[in-house]
Amino acid sequence: MSFDETSQILDVPRGGPLELARAKSSFNWKKMKLFFEDLDLINYKNQIWDTLRKDADFIRPTEEPSLMEQKKICQKRCLKIKKYNFINEDIQMERPLKRILFDEAIVLWDIDTSVKYSLHFQMFEQLLKTLGTLRHQQFVEGCEKGDIFGCFAMTEMSHGSNTKNLKTTAHYDPKTEEFVINTPSIEDCKIWVGNLGKFATHSAVYAQLYTPDNQCHGLHIFIVPVRDPYTMALKPGVICGEMGPKAGLNGVDNGFATFNQVRIPRENLLNKTGDVTPDGVYVSPIKDAKKRFGISLGALSNGRVGLTYYAHSVQGMALTIALRYAAARKQFGEPETPILEYQSHEYRLMPLLAIRYTWHAFSMSFFDNLSEFLIGLFTGDKSDRQAELGREIHAISCVSKPASSWNTQRVIQECREACGGHGYLKASRLGDLRNSNDPLLTFEGDNNVLIQQTRQLAETPLKTVEFLRNFDQKLQVKFKSNSKEDLLNQKSLMEMFDWLICYMVKISHDKLQNNLKKGQDLFTARNENQVFYSKSLALIFMERQLIERFIEKINQNKDESLGKVLNRILYLAGLYLLDNHVGLFYQGGFYSTEKPVFLIRECILELCRELRDDAMGLVDAMAPPDFVLNSVLGESNGE
Amino acid sequence: MSFDETSQILDVPRGGPLELARAKSSFNWKKMKLFFEDLDLINYKNQIWDTLRKDADFIRPTEEPSLMEQKKICQKRCLKIKKYNFINEDIQMERPLKRILFDEAIVLWDIDTSVKYSLHFQMFEQLLKTLGTLRHQQFVEGCEKGDIFGCFAMTEMSHGSNTKNLKTTAHYDPKTEEFVINTPSIEDCKIWVGNLGKFATHSAVYAQLYTPDNQCHGLHIFIVPVRDPYTMALKPGVICGEMGPKAGLNGVDNGFATFNQVRIPRENLLNKTGDVTPDGVYVSPIKDAKKRFGISLGALSNGRVGLTYYAHSVQGMALTIALRYAAARKQFGEPETPILEYQSHEYRLMPLLAIRYTWHAFSMSFFDNLSEFLIGLFTGDKSDRQAELGREIHAISCVSKPASSWNTQRVIQECREACGGHGYLKASRLGDLRNSNDPLLTFEGDNNVLIQQTRQLAETPLKTVEFLRNFDQKLQVKFKSNSKEDLLNQKSLMEMFDWLICYMVKISHDKLQNNLKKGQDLFTARNENQVFYSKSLALIFMERQLIERFIEKINQNKDESLGKVLNRILYLAGLYLLDNHVGLFYQGGFYSTEKPVFLIRECILELCRELRDDAMGLVDAMAPPDFVLNSVLGESNGE
Ligand SMILES: Cc1cc2nc3c(=O)[nH]c(=O)nc-3n(C[C@H](O)[C@H](O)[C@H](O)COP(=O)(O)OP(=O)(O)OC[C@H]3O[C@@H](n4cnc5c(N)ncnc54)[C@H](O)[C@@H]3O)c2cc1C
Ligand SMILES: Cc1cc2nc3c(=O)[nH]c(=O)nc-3n(C[C@H](O)[C@H](O)[C@H](O)COP(=O)(O)OP(=O)(O)OC[C@H]3O[C@@H](n4cnc5c(N)ncnc54)[C@H](O)[C@@H]3O)c2cc1C
Repeated sequence: MSFDETSQILDVPRGGPLELARAKSSFNWKKMKLFFEDLDLINYKNQIWDTLRKDADFIRPTEEPSLMEQKKICQKRCLKIKKYNFINEDIQMERPLKRILFDEAIVLWDIDTSVKYSLHFQMFEQLLKTLGTLRHQQFVEGCEKGDIFGCFAMTEMSHGSNTKNLKTTAHYDPKTEEFVINTPSIEDCKIWVGNLGKFATHSAVYAQLYTPDNQCHGLHIFIVPVRDPYTMALKPGVICGEMGPKAGLNGVDNGFATFNQVRIPRENLLNKTGDVTPDGVYVSPIKDAKKRFGISLGALSNGRVGLTYYAHSVQGMALTIALRYAAARKQFGEPETPILEYQSHEYRLMPLLAIRYTWHAFSMSFFDNLSEFLIGLFTGDKSDRQAELGREIHAISCVSKPASSWNTQRVIQECREACGGHGYLKASRLGDLRNSNDPLLTFEGDNNVLIQQTRQLAETPLKTVEFLRNFDQKLQVKFKSNSKEDLLNQKSLMEMFDWLICYMVKISHDKLQNNLKKGQDLFTARNENQVFYSKSLALIFMERQLIERFIEKINQNKDESLGKVLNRILYLAGLYLLDNHVGLFYQGGFYSTEKPVFLIRECILELCRELRDDAMGLVDAMAPPDFVLNSVLGESNGE
Repeated sequence: MSFDETSQILDVPRGGPLELARAKSSFNWKKMKLFFEDLDLINYKNQIWDTLRKDADFIRPTEEPSLMEQKKICQKRCLKIKKYNFINEDIQMERPLKRILFDEAIVLWDIDTSVKYSLHFQMFEQLLKTLGTLRHQQFVEGCEKGDIFGCFAMTEMSHGSNTKNLKTTAHYDPKTEEFVINTPSIEDCKIWVGNLGKFATHSAVYAQLYTPDNQCHGLHIFIVPVRDPYTMALKPGVICGEMGPKAGLNGVDNGFATFNQVRIPRENLLNKTGDVTPDGVYVSPIKDAKKRFGISLGALSNGRVGLTYYAHSVQGMALTIALRYAAARKQFGEPETPILEYQSHEYRLMPLLAIRYTWHAFSMSFFDNLSEFLIGLFTGDKSDRQAELGREIHAISCVSKPASSWNTQRVIQECREACGGHGYLKASRLGDLRNSNDPLLTFEGDNNVLIQQTRQLAETPLKTVEFLRNFDQKLQVKFKSNSKEDLLNQKSLMEMFDWLICYMVKISHDKLQNNLKKGQDLFTARNENQVFYSKSLALIFMERQLIERFIEKINQNKDESLGKVLNRILYLAGLYLLDNHVGLFYQGGFYSTEKPVFLIRECILELCRELRDDAMGLVDAMAPPDFVLNSVLGESNGE
């Protein structure tokens, strides 16, 4: 890394209440920033932010606008961002990571706008491109020209998580070569659809496809015009409106819709995986139903990988706010001490910061996997590696999205509390962050339902996951560190995670077999294996991922000046996560005396203290500029 | 309990989606209701609610009013409630519990109004009565007549938790027989003061009292007129205004204030514990500084006991909403299954419901203790029992307020998630409950700071707490249950809690001694003993309280039909709480094999399932009427 590169990163303000805390840093924060994102990426985000900053449409209102006004502002911003053409296929091809950094740039600025934008430009348009064919090019062009504004209508009033049972129908009528979209009863109306409340002209509707012989061919996606793009009048047979005020995200117009025998041309079916001939015969280019399913899995992973990244970046803002406040705020002691220097405050925040760093490395590396997979899709790669990658991304995203969004929700709450009364000011932004992150726990797969999908791990213990080789041997290992030195190294950490996973796999597997032996069917046996087993296993699996990928990342570091602090982050994050599983370590015999707990906790507290001196450097390396952060508490000058 | 009594409680609606779930109940919910609150109390709350329901000022606005409008509505409601005279000294004397049930009735209806009301009528007026003397009768009368609207100004910009260091001064000027109230610098301005933003006419200001010899006599309370009661113009030298939008509670006008040499009559000092003679000599009727401190401790406990109750009642609403939704909402399975019947959903909600019941018994019993103490104060009781009670209430309230408010915050979040997308609708009320409960974690003593006060427990292991007798003997006990029967009884549960506390006291004590031996001073040694020790100990102490008092309560039950379900609540709550401490049980050698964990968790899951059938009965017994609950999800007919 050359001196030139750091010099191209803007300084933080000199002076002010954070000066003292910054002076303690053991490393150059600009080098740390460059270790995670190169200059090309940093500049890319900064250019986006600079553009928004200079645009009057992006000025933050001084008073909270009415709900209606919020939706209008959000819509306007969304279209404006599209016009700026910050991201397009060329940019994405050249540097896939820019797709997600673009999302991050917008999310940090304004979460509502980002959600609205991705519903139209990423979900709707993406569906047209991936599941549509040439004949849908007209819709893509409509999106690009701004004649079409889309939304994605899956959820129904009676069926949310259980998408298989959606009731909306699409009957094919060969006489007119049309599909007839219909909502059987009021309980089957589409709900929650983002953009549908007010602005959408077209909706991608999930419906059960019926051929004239009255056979059902399962869920397919139909492009249904819902409003006239010029007058915004509803199309005949379509009734839709607003869901009403929400706990947050009120810039997005979530809506409901019923379809009363709405006719659309046969060509509006997205037909990549299945089609109906003009005379009404169902045909599919992909014979293998499993493979068809695989393709749509891929499309869904896309969103979850994005949300994983999205949540971790919101988390970074909350920690920036709370840590800068903690370094500047003094209370008690003589002379008065910054609250960050109290053991309990340190322990509340420093491990969360360390873990945020592991999420950062993970989210980028995971997005790299996704990009590789998508390029494979695009180039028609049919290799085993491609298929494996698809399944792996699916499995990991089913736990990374829940884990990332849950973790972020907890971190925001802790940061709010860590700022005392000031954290409760709207102007701290912490309340808004909490309210806006909250729906992530539910949409694109409810967290608690999604996480059940990773149960495969427990059911085929020895095949799925590489590190489960030498299963029995790994289970034999016992805690044997006698000192800090024994404990604080990559091998010890990974040994502990491996043992933990093997033990969890073992007891989950035993439990499931037991359930089956008791005569339970598989559906019940799996359900009764959720609590204490599958769910915990999935979350521990995720924690191991975080640590494993962070190790991969820091092993690439060549800069000695960063080595120490990167190791401390690793050790603190790793031990803190492991320390949540003390019970399991004893239960399975990995610990057998009081000592491991005392030793590990001593190390945790020591690492908190050591890392505290680097807290401001670590924050500066991850914080967006003040005008993006937009919090009266977290400003870079500490005031 | 006679048949007559249950017949006087309003029925829940027949039919509807909850009918089936209700039919499973093993007991009569009205009897359960009467077990916790007798008819006199139930009718008392219902009368309040009926009155509010019929009053146009209490109609809930269909659209969210502007922030300014919210404050006006809240102020109006507050004065109206006072006019209704629901609570007064006579009622309180006759039935002390009605004080807290009055609070509950208002809180459940509208949290903002309740907070505003208590700041003026309970905090401000109460201070006048308890720390003022005869000469402050005029202010009390002003409050009653509505000429005075008060607030309580303690917090300053630079000093929140660290109240000892507050900087506002009150210099006595014998020439004019006035105090001069002054804000030394902008950082010392009073902030966050509820009611001060817009409506307060008088403020109870905490300031350092100086006599003419320039000696400081510490913090005292001064009644400072801030606005003209007729024109609402600010008094000379007073600058105050709004704190600005908050993350919730926007009906309350929190304000800031600076005082520029504001002169007030000598008599405006609340002089129960200390006074200044006209010529400027400080005198105190209570020579013993410790005792003086004790009296103010008592006054502060009052608020915390109230908040303990307040949070647990908000928690009850969140659980009502989530459990009714869970019984009515079906998803997956053939035929589709109510989500409450999935193990993971059961485990997410049923233990929380059981624990809510223990909080209910605790909060009522704890309020009884407070009432006894306050009556003692009033009648001038100087017995040892009275002094002990005061200290005990202080110690317990320092942990019950944090534990109750934290627990409620977590429960609300879980309930929001348990309702899926619908939980995110503003109309579910869950978002608003979360935002309104949130500041409880901070005000009347920041939770993390407050909980440090209970460290005495660790420092004098053998004296303070009755159950710590036979300390060593209790520590010798090991887990020895071989079956459900061995485990599920009061003795086993209490043995486990006792062991846990003794073990925590032991290791905390050892740790502190170690810190001191390492040469740390007491301030540091204590600070370094927070994480893993004092804080955990305090929370476990609270959990033991919950279980101990719930046992006391259910042992009073004479009705066989309630016995089974009350026991299940006890066992589920107890085991769930204990199961969070698996690590400690192994660490200290109470467990030594895998078996205890498996046995306890099997019991927990079984109890969840058994109690599930009684869920609707338990909810009906604690739920307020629908028009109070005010959630589109939690209505009593399940629709
Ligand atoms: C802000 C927001 C925006 C949205 N945008 C869109 C959109 O643009 N398009 C769209 O189609 N949808 C959208 N949704 C809907 C969202 O996808 C659904 O809310 C989500 O899929 C969950 O479905 P549900 O709300 O019906 O919950 P349910 O599926 O009814 O689940 C309710 C609860 O039951 C639990 N549960 C359910 N099944 C089980 C089981 N088998 N075992 C254990 N527990 C179970 C869940 O964990 C959850 O806690 C949006 C939602 C929100 C809040
Ligand atoms: C909605 C609302 C209403 C309020 N109403 C009133 C009112 O009517 N009148 C009034 O006087 N005040 C009021 N307050 C102020 C409230 O009492 C203070 O916010 C509270 O006392 C905490 O003080 P602080 O905000 O300065 O936080 P600080 O004391 O600065 O604490 C900030 C953080 O540091 C931590 N911390 C502080 N000291 C230590 C330590 N020694 N060890 C470890 N950690 C530590 C805390 O846990 C906290 O997380 C209100 C506040 C709110 C939010």
